[in-house]
Amino acid sequence: MKIIEQLNWRYATKAMDGRRIPEDKIGRILEAARLAPSSNGLQPFEIIVISNQELKEKIRPAAFDQQQITGCSHLLVFAAWDQYTPGRIDAFIEHTARERGGDPERLERHRQSLLNNFGSMDKDRGYAHAARQAYLSLGVTIVAAAAEGVDGTPMEGFDPVQLDEILGLKQKGLRSAVIIALGYRDTEKDWLVNLKKVRKHKDQFITELN
Amino acid sequence: MKIIEQLNWRYATKAMDGRRIPEDKIGRILEAARLAPSSNGLQPFEIIVISNQELKEKIRPAAFDQQQITGCSHLLVFAAWDQYTPGRIDAFIEHTARERGGDPERLERHRQSLLNNFGSMDKDRGYAHAARQAYLSLGVTIVAAAAEGVDGTPMEGFDPVQLDEILGLKQKGLRSAVIIALGYRDTEKDWLVNLKKVRKHKDQFITELN
Repeated sequence: MKIIEQLNWRYATKAMDGRRIPEDKIGRILEAARLAPSSNGLQPFEIIVISNQELKEKIRPAAFDQQQITGCSHLLVFAAWDQYTPGRIDAFIEHTARERGGDPERLERHRQSLLNNFGSMDKDRGYAHAARQAYLSLGVTIVAAAAEGVDGTPMEGFDPVQLDEILGLKQKGLRSAVIIALGYRDTEKDWLVNLKKVRKHKDQFITELN
Repeated sequence: MKIIEQLNWRYATKAMDGRRIPEDKIGRILEAARLAPSSNGLQPFEIIVISNQELKEKIRPAAFDQQQITGCSHLLVFAAWDQYTPGRIDAFIEHTARERGGDPERLERHRQSLLNNFGSMDKDRGYAHAARQAYLSLGVTIVAAAAEGVDGTPMEGFDPVQLDEILGLKQKGLRSAVIIALGYRDTEKDWLVNLKKVRKHKDQFITELN
């Protein structure tokens, strides 16, 4: 399977060379992110895609001055809902009804069930749940990028409060959960490029109950 | 790109037909999960792979009696570390040193840095962080399964306390974060198989700042 080769090829690139990802490639990577499944299909996050160089320069100090923030082509910010609200759940049900149709009574039961499960979550728990869905989509994004020969460096090393401020996320009810720099490795400048990939051995990672 | 087709092909299968996934396929799916990146490379989770039918029957009531628990071929439990401990961080550094070598002083600085960042997290925050890494790997797993023509139903609908108890995870310092049933759709019995996949439209999901 190619995915194994692609996952072995990729690594958390520490230096990127500034080359721009062609539009068709970035389009397919984002489409994969969009198609990722999520809890109840709610997709409780959005992706901010930043290719503007000035904006990347502005973000870099909020991300411990890491080179890949400005060396990348596109910086993706996975911004999760700050909470589940009745309005968001209503909008989801309306969208589902428009897209898929379905029995109104059944949709109403679905809405009530989502309101019971998610509407009652406090803000922190709701955000934590939403952020997990963003991480799942990030996993899909990483594979899609590697399949396109695009390097992707997932990063938690940033100040979410500062980043939310720069991007005006709070006003949108969003919080930056995790980011990924997409671009191309600078093989001459990256200290990590030739180091062996380290993973737990299979027997430390997998327990088979047959 | 094939990944888009594969992601459109997959869906959260609600009825599986009990067919067994061949060993080579399940092996590659698990290898993809293992190769997924994680924060600092710590891989703070393990995967329990359950193909034993009796055990699946035992788990099913703890997962709201959902058919895919017993109809699947392999049930994967992503079990995250219940906390970051100095012992776990030491083991990670030792493993890295064995696999990759490196300057002992640099490794020691790395160890101290991880202890500062993760050793100080309280239990709940540590687990929450570990669980996110498991979700990222789950995203990779979903793509890998689809690439093998294997259906995968990611599930949060289970009682983690009961599941931990059945699998003896607490004693291992693990907590079940999320599960995925891998197998083959039963197209005659699955009400969801012919319904349109619903996702947010691109303009509701992606904001481009060029």
